[in-house]
Amino acid sequence: MIIKHGGNIHEFSKKHKMAIDDILDFSANINPLGMSKQVSKKLDEALLQALHYPDPDYRDLMKAVSDLEGLYEDHIVLGSGGIECIFLLAEHLKLKNIKIQGPTFVEYERAFSKYGSMVLYDLLNHHDFLTDMDRFIEDISPDIDGILLCNPNNPTGILIDKQALLKLLDYAKQENIYLIIDEAFIDFVDKPHETSMVDWINSYDNLVVIKSLTKFYGIPGLRLGYLLSGDKKLVLDIKSTRMPWAINSMAASLGLASLSDQSYIEETRHYILNERKVFIDELNKFTKLKVFPSQGNYIFFYTKCFDLDEQLKDFGIMIRNCSNYVGLDKGYFRVAIKKNHENQALIHALKEILKD
Amino acid sequence: MIIKHGGNIHEFSKKHKMAIDDILDFSANINPLGMSKQVSKKLDEALLQALHYPDPDYRDLMKAVSDLEGLYEDHIVLGSGGIECIFLLAEHLKLKNIKIQGPTFVEYERAFSKYGSMVLYDLLNHHDFLTDMDRFIEDISPDIDGILLCNPNNPTGILIDKQALLKLLDYAKQENIYLIIDEAFIDFVDKPHETSMVDWINSYDNLVVIKSLTKFYGIPGLRLGYLLSGDKKLVLDIKSTRMPWAINSMAASLGLASLSDQSYIEETRHYILNERKVFIDELNKFTKLKVFPSQGNYIFFYTKCFDLDEQLKDFGIMIRNCSNYVGLDKGYFRVAIKKNHENQALIHALKEILKD
Repeated sequence: MIIKHGGNIHEFSKKHKMAIDDILDFSANINPLGMSKQVSKKLDEALLQALHYPDPDYRDLMKAVSDLEGLYEDHIVLGSGGIECIFLLAEHLKLKNIKIQGPTFVEYERAFSKYGSMVLYDLLNHHDFLTDMDRFIEDISPDIDGILLCNPNNPTGILIDKQALLKLLDYAKQENIYLIIDEAFIDFVDKPHETSMVDWINSYDNLVVIKSLTKFYGIPGLRLGYLLSGDKKLVLDIKSTRMPWAINSMAASLGLASLSDQSYIEETRHYILNERKVFIDELNKFTKLKVFPSQGNYIFFYTKCFDLDEQLKDFGIMIRNCSNYVGLDKGYFRVAIKKNHENQALIHALKEILKD
Repeated sequence: MIIKHGGNIHEFSKKHKMAIDDILDFSANINPLGMSKQVSKKLDEALLQALHYPDPDYRDLMKAVSDLEGLYEDHIVLGSGGIECIFLLAEHLKLKNIKIQGPTFVEYERAFSKYGSMVLYDLLNHHDFLTDMDRFIEDISPDIDGILLCNPNNPTGILIDKQALLKLLDYAKQENIYLIIDEAFIDFVDKPHETSMVDWINSYDNLVVIKSLTKFYGIPGLRLGYLLSGDKKLVLDIKSTRMPWAINSMAASLGLASLSDQSYIEETRHYILNERKVFIDELNKFTKLKVFPSQGNYIFFYTKCFDLDEQLKDFGIMIRNCSNYVGLDKGYFRVAIKKNHENQALIHALKEILKD
């Protein structure tokens, strides 16, 4: 890999000669409760299934996603991670000029540039990183044929107002612009159902929503996500030319097991919603940190201690230095919300370093 | 999936209301000994790794492949199955006209057509399906910039003579033609090291060899393969624009466990080499079958009993009807080499049906 992502725990482990289990990795935004117990229960069964080629249509998983989202299969493409969905979109939409709200996840730009789209960033202000939708729409030039927003945004955690999104969707529809919303972290927000744009898939053929199963369900190694598209022709186009068996059988069956674990889902939401408040309150006590009100399972802040990530390494702690995001600068960091005692360990280390 | 592959055991299971374990699936060419015991030993450990994003460089697996093939990493691309390697090649080589020796695996055509290459089949004769390399080379027109051969070929199992391949490689080099050899089944042939073209990767920058780990190691559900390229620029081009984490962590760690199990590897080779002889001898006894001398873990034959696959379904047996391969016709079938008692069950059913 040429591009560096935040949390390469494998590299950190080798470089600092620390076992992976001894590292406190705040740089990757994964469910702190680990994975659902249904996953380990189904593990042996899933391995036996690996003796066969996967079902090319992934019927069981497809049905589960269809039921979950209330959409027929002709609106759904399953992917090997939300990232594969992004690359599939970039490949098939063949957009001329895509406007991406930044700072945000770097893979959007990589994917769309790869397939020849010109990427134009619309950068959020550094004061509050809030989307000013009227200004955003005003600045859409006539050559734009695609817009991509991440909601809640990564790395800021800031949510875009639903009414503003609907206004954008209507505008985009009228101007023949594809609107892509990456909802990779939507399950962590206070009110997912009032925030998600999935309900509009059936009525807007210019809307695509991407979802990830790896963050909420704590299975990033398994690579599982999907896209929901109002445009059924796009879905058919992707399915008919795609390589077969793109999702491996362990991901398909263990992902399915995760989706069915209702108590784990509720426990996760309950934990994150509580701990997010607690963690933000603790971080807000540091006068040397400016903390932004995240709705994700991660918290974004600014500090003038530019080498905070380097100093935290001595504590065996990895955090995400966000200075290499387009539109950001030195001093911006993102930390995952982990278990309470782990978050406390970070707070403790911050007290040592910031001497606040 | 729009294209139908042979062995969709999931569809067969649902249609015939039979449990997957009760079906004798001769339509997919998988190691009959199942997977290495190292895989189940490593299973819990592998699942724990799924809590993290995979190492984007897959260093451990990459080192194992590098050691196995005696090639540096800058010649190697790991893939989510050999099929992903084929699609990556098609995408990055952007060939104008590719000549594919047929009948063969349908995904070559799907992949290269998808990325705009014109696919021209060079069809083998139906008498013995042997490659006449002098004739093959003579028929290469000046507009050809790529050649793809599967060795041993799928579905015929026929091996191309090494000296003939070297002659083709030299010709291709001189004419600036990429030569792609899919060695997905090479580990099953009598003398893999005397047959594989891997030794020429270092000296021919127009040579690409594709390998699969899913067939030999009995893990088709995990999706794992790699390509070896003499052209380091091609390798770098693929790596620098590819989506991250294309291989899931279960595939990476369980594939690694498989590769290290030397006794399983030897047991598999010993079993297949013996059972292939036994099975071919048994099939040869049927006057109504014309059996071709396979070097794969599958056997290809012709019969005038055109609905043999349909009749075998009543015995709970799936075989691959090859009539939909480009260049084949009714009456061609492929069966995997399975456990001896399973092969005997097929022989028994054939006796009932063919009344030979």
